[in-house]
Amino acid sequence: MTDQTTTQQDDFASKVQYARASGDYQSLMNAIPYAAVIGAEVLQQEGELLFRLPRNPDNIGNPLLPAIHGGVIGGFMELAASIQVLIRAEPMGLPKLIDFSLDYLRAGRDQDTLVDCQIWRQGVRVANVAITAWQSDRQQPIATARAHFLLSASFGVEGLSPS
Amino acid sequence: MTDQTTTQQDDFASKVQYARASGDYQSLMNAIPYAAVIGAEVLQQEGELLFRLPRNPDNIGNPLLPAIHGGVIGGFMELAASIQVLIRAEPMGLPKLIDFSLDYLRAGRDQDTLVDCQIWRQGVRVANVAITAWQSDRQQPIATARAHFLLSASFGVEGLSPS
Repeated sequence: MTDQTTTQQDDFASKVQYARASGDYQSLMNAIPYAAVIGAEVLQQEGELLFRLPRNPDNIGNPLLPAIHGGVIGGFMELAASIQVLIRAEPMGLPKLIDFSLDYLRAGRDQDTLVDCQIWRQGVRVANVAITAWQSDRQQPIATARAHFLLSASFGVEGLSPS
Repeated sequence: MTDQTTTQQDDFASKVQYARASGDYQSLMNAIPYAAVIGAEVLQQEGELLFRLPRNPDNIGNPLLPAIHGGVIGGFMELAASIQVLIRAEPMGLPKLIDFSLDYLRAGRDQDTLVDCQIWRQGVRVANVAITAWQSDRQQPIATARAHFLLSASFGVEGLSPS
């Protein structure tokens, strides 16, 4: 482990600590480069944590409809789940994704997408999360997904090891 | 259906036709905005179709390792599968993703990622695809996934309807 890695870890750990203490979760989102690329946002509405992917022509996958690429929707749902786990499950380190299963229900139109996440079970090592994405109508989701996260013991630099 | 939509459909349909006839599959990839954002490439090696996601700092999800965001890997694997189906299964329209299940096996490092896709079954309406992603060693995949695609009857503008 280099000194630089240690500094980056301290940096990220302090960002997580700051976000939890202040409730400024967007700062946490901004620390993730991929989140900036797709333009992911954290919303807090009436005590509920939601995530928004603003409309962006770059996210189009099917130029005919036009529809958002499934990969963006899936990636955004994964991202939202990992932020939710980081904030709510309070793991010591960055949660690691074990698996992710996604059902597409409707085409994602070229408009804002909203996501909510439910941590259905939080064990010592694993958290189960359900993720729902919708656009104009929350009762008409465009996709639902579930994910398992490994709650690692520390902000370590070791690779993903599900054992 | 507007005239503009019809023109876009004709455009995309002719791009698909051109790519199939010429073997220039990259042109097909380039027609998808999200593919350009993540920088996805089509490779043809010894008659085998592979997909490459070149190393890109924007795709980082875990700034500590650094590791590629799972959402980028998943999204790229989805994209690769849809291009593979478009080329090999030769549906009349753009294949529609029904579901996608992903196991993360190792952290995706900040380097090139390669993907291959196998169409395990192609029915009249549905294709089953297995997708494998690796980096330095093909025998040590970083993720495996499977997807179902609905092979629609035409380059229609209707939404995703799995019936």
